[in-house]
Amino acid sequence: MTTVLKLGGSVITDKSAPETVDADALAAAATAVTAGATDPAGELVVVHGGGSFGHHHAAEHGVSATEGTDDAATVREIHDAMGRLNAAVLDALGERGVPALPVRPLSAAARDEDSTLTLATTAVERQLGEGFCPVLHGDVVVHEGAGATILSGDEIVAALARSLSVDRVGLCSTVPGVLDADGDVVERVERFADVAEAVGASDATDVTGGMAGKVRTLLDLPVPASVFGSAALRGFLDGDRPGTLVAGPNVEE
Amino acid sequence: MTTVLKLGGSVITDKSAPETVDADALAAAATAVTAGATDPAGELVVVHGGGSFGHHHAAEHGVSATEGTDDAATVREIHDAMGRLNAAVLDALGERGVPALPVRPLSAAARDEDSTLTLATTAVERQLGEGFCPVLHGDVVVHEGAGATILSGDEIVAALARSLSVDRVGLCSTVPGVLDADGDVVERVERFADVAEAVGASDATDVTGGMAGKVRTLLDLPVPASVFGSAALRGFLDGDRPGTLVAGPNVEE
Repeated sequence: MTTVLKLGGSVITDKSAPETVDADALAAAATAVTAGATDPAGELVVVHGGGSFGHHHAAEHGVSATEGTDDAATVREIHDAMGRLNAAVLDALGERGVPALPVRPLSAAARDEDSTLTLATTAVERQLGEGFCPVLHGDVVVHEGAGATILSGDEIVAALARSLSVDRVGLCSTVPGVLDADGDVVERVERFADVAEAVGASDATDVTGGMAGKVRTLLDLPVPASVFGSAALRGFLDGDRPGTLVAGPNVEE
Repeated sequence: MTTVLKLGGSVITDKSAPETVDADALAAAATAVTAGATDPAGELVVVHGGGSFGHHHAAEHGVSATEGTDDAATVREIHDAMGRLNAAVLDALGERGVPALPVRPLSAAARDEDSTLTLATTAVERQLGEGFCPVLHGDVVVHEGAGATILSGDEIVAALARSLSVDRVGLCSTVPGVLDADGDVVERVERFADVAEAVGASDATDVTGGMAGKVRTLLDLPVPASVFGSAALRGFLDGDRPGTLVAGPNVEE
């Protein structure tokens, strides 16, 4: 039984200030991970977004998921910022007894010319097998013909759901789910057309795209994915399906 | 044309003091990398050992290549120390114009129950292809049935020589080559028996083994490997074969 949990960058950081952890939100998320029915030791993979760490540096240098950089110093600047956020997440989990270990996508992933991502799960799988909790993050990744581009946490979730035997996928976001035009949570999305008009850009600037991109990515997955707010994190880890269930044509339930 | 260069931990750190870079030695090595005929942008993979960074923490917790730990905090302590040395190496190279990027083995590798190492080279290969210089390091790695154990830089060199299309392998050490019983450099080693009596433990305590282990590892490679001292680094990168050439039965020259 393997669960992939994405903690949105906007959930655990203050996106309005560079490199600022939202310590209360991160502590609450780490506590929920400890308290939930899902065993974080060997059954849980955590992926977190960049929030005010990665996005700040990426925007400064004009690097995005499609606009790359050949400058190693820029790559390191973005990657190191994400390393500082990753360390904060590992600390918050570790302090609460979760055997969390880092898995840095720059070291394990690559994009080819048509932007297809290859993520080697060698370390993730063995970490799970040995009872650790791998913690990945949005990162910069070397991209054929483009130097290095931004890799979102959502893309990592999708790559994990394809490569590992994953049972449950959850995205903890700043909103309680995918919202319709009236601002109500959509219970289930099976086709992008269901929500195309309602999903726009996310509140804060996000180089890796907002809810529209998230929904498109999740619709491709072989497993259903829940999109929910922080308040529902504990429930998701206990087995509930809070927020919006995104279940595309590849899902066999 | 791909060259794998190992910079020994004892070469770039002061092994007698915890977490101490030998700044002059590191600067000299980085300068040689810049000056040599081998293009560090796309043709060179650097691997460095742990020296006084990794070994210090590993020894403190009794972690070795065979004695593992289940404690995530210990794994992170060793890995983070190696990250600090890796950053110093990346800085030294980067300041001299080498487009060096980190590849952290904990994120890309795993050992199975019989200690066989799997190192995913997804990122290393794409970094080379895009003209970057991947810099790996001795690390802690998750090990089936043992938690996490120490992975030496020499083992990483061997894994790279097996997985990538590698043309040249060089190990820059504190000694000018494999020494015979009289302290003279052996020109060529083809069988372990050639040097069995002469190679003992290395000078300083090294959780990942001394010259004997190095020779055994190199004898298994599909390409010949040179073992040489710092003074010969530039010559090796210019195409010379300084020090000792270790060429085992798998080599087709």
